[in-house]
Amino acid sequence: MFEQNLTRLAVRTRGRGFHEITREIADRVTRAGIGTGLCTLHLQHTSASLVIQENADPDVRHDFDRFFSRLVPDGDPLFVHTIEGDDDMAAHIRTALTTVNLSIPVAEGRLTLGTWQGIYVWEHRTAPHVRTLIVHVMGEPV
Amino acid sequence: MFEQNLTRLAVRTRGRGFHEITREIADRVTRAGIGTGLCTLHLQHTSASLVIQENADPDVRHDFDRFFSRLVPDGDPLFVHTIEGDDDMAAHIRTALTTVNLSIPVAEGRLTLGTWQGIYVWEHRTAPHVRTLIVHVMGEPV
Amino acid sequence: MFEQNLTRLAVRTRGRGFHEITREIADRVTRAGIGTGLCTLHLQHTSASLVIQENADPDVRHDFDRFFSRLVPDGDPLFVHTIEGDDDMAAHIRTALTTVNLSIPVAEGRLTLGTWQGIYVWEHRTAPHVRTLIVHVMGEPV
Repeated sequence: MFEQNLTRLAVRTRGRGFHEITREIADRVTRAGIGTGLCTLHLQHTSASLVIQENADPDVRHDFDRFFSRLVPDGDPLFVHTIEGDDDMAAHIRTALTTVNLSIPVAEGRLTLGTWQGIYVWEHRTAPHVRTLIVHVMGEPV
Repeated sequence: MFEQNLTRLAVRTRGRGFHEITREIADRVTRAGIGTGLCTLHLQHTSASLVIQENADPDVRHDFDRFFSRLVPDGDPLFVHTIEGDDDMAAHIRTALTTVNLSIPVAEGRLTLGTWQGIYVWEHRTAPHVRTLIVHVMGEPV
Repeated sequence: MFEQNLTRLAVRTRGRGFHEITREIADRVTRAGIGTGLCTLHLQHTSASLVIQENADPDVRHDFDRFFSRLVPDGDPLFVHTIEGDDDMAAHIRTALTTVNLSIPVAEGRLTLGTWQGIYVWEHRTAPHVRTLIVHVMGEPV
């Protein structure tokens, strides 16, 4: 017998940077009561993204920030779309270079993340935002 | 009770650029008759990609084009694979930097896209192509 | 009637480069006995990724390697996280620029890959590693 559970999660970011949501998503999977199945996350925005990355050394996320600031600089003279601020077009491109969808299988009632994998909302705008995430879990009950 | 629906969608592109398919995908979801579930899109190509991006200001897509033309230039002297044209290897890399798979939950019979999110086939070759997209919808009927 | 099948696949890489897994995944789909459905792959790592790319000319994968070595150089002086080696932070960034999740619909018992699409584990570390992949197949039996 298949079941599913669909909820919304509002994430308050503090401006550009990584906001970990691994525990919140794990909790939703537990509450959905699915033993084996699939968890899909969809972020409803075009200037913030979802990323699975190392959850150990904070320097990793610091280096991500520095690398992307060089790769996709705010206020690049190439940009025509500047009406929403210097960081807006850079935020759209950072989002497209990463992703807004994740699909993670569920086994024995838990996300099958690797030991060092954490799930993050990566805010690309410099100002804080409220970001809405759709969390869908489907599969066979425990 | 779970049901599913799998169809193919042929998209005729006009060469490099964004081709919006949001309405076609929304129509397929409606016709599938699924109330709550999951919609998965898979593009069967290696030189065009799927991207969810802002559907409002056309300058955003213009800036994407300019940024990617600088990041992954056609005819880069680094490329050895040039037999299919100056733009072919650049198209493969642009595809890998974005994606060919999207997974979007369905709620109340509709895709859970955000207000500003549109779904696009991003053609990376300079010549027009016919691109085939697999559209899979699964879940509980309305 | 819906069914699902979840297995793990250990992939031994030979260091940086592409390791094709199309046949192994196709075999798992066949053994799962699903006619129409969805196959989801999740790689449990943060320094190797999954990519669908051209399976014909090996020069394509060679050019990918050269392009990414220039785009995200090992030992970039910008990196602070260097304790795990010169190639570790570059490997994390390459992983985020590509993906660790793929979702491919299944039709008539087979993955709906395009003619030229192959599935690869892209190892980003220079040393060989064992990488674990979760393979989830769900849908209606043949």
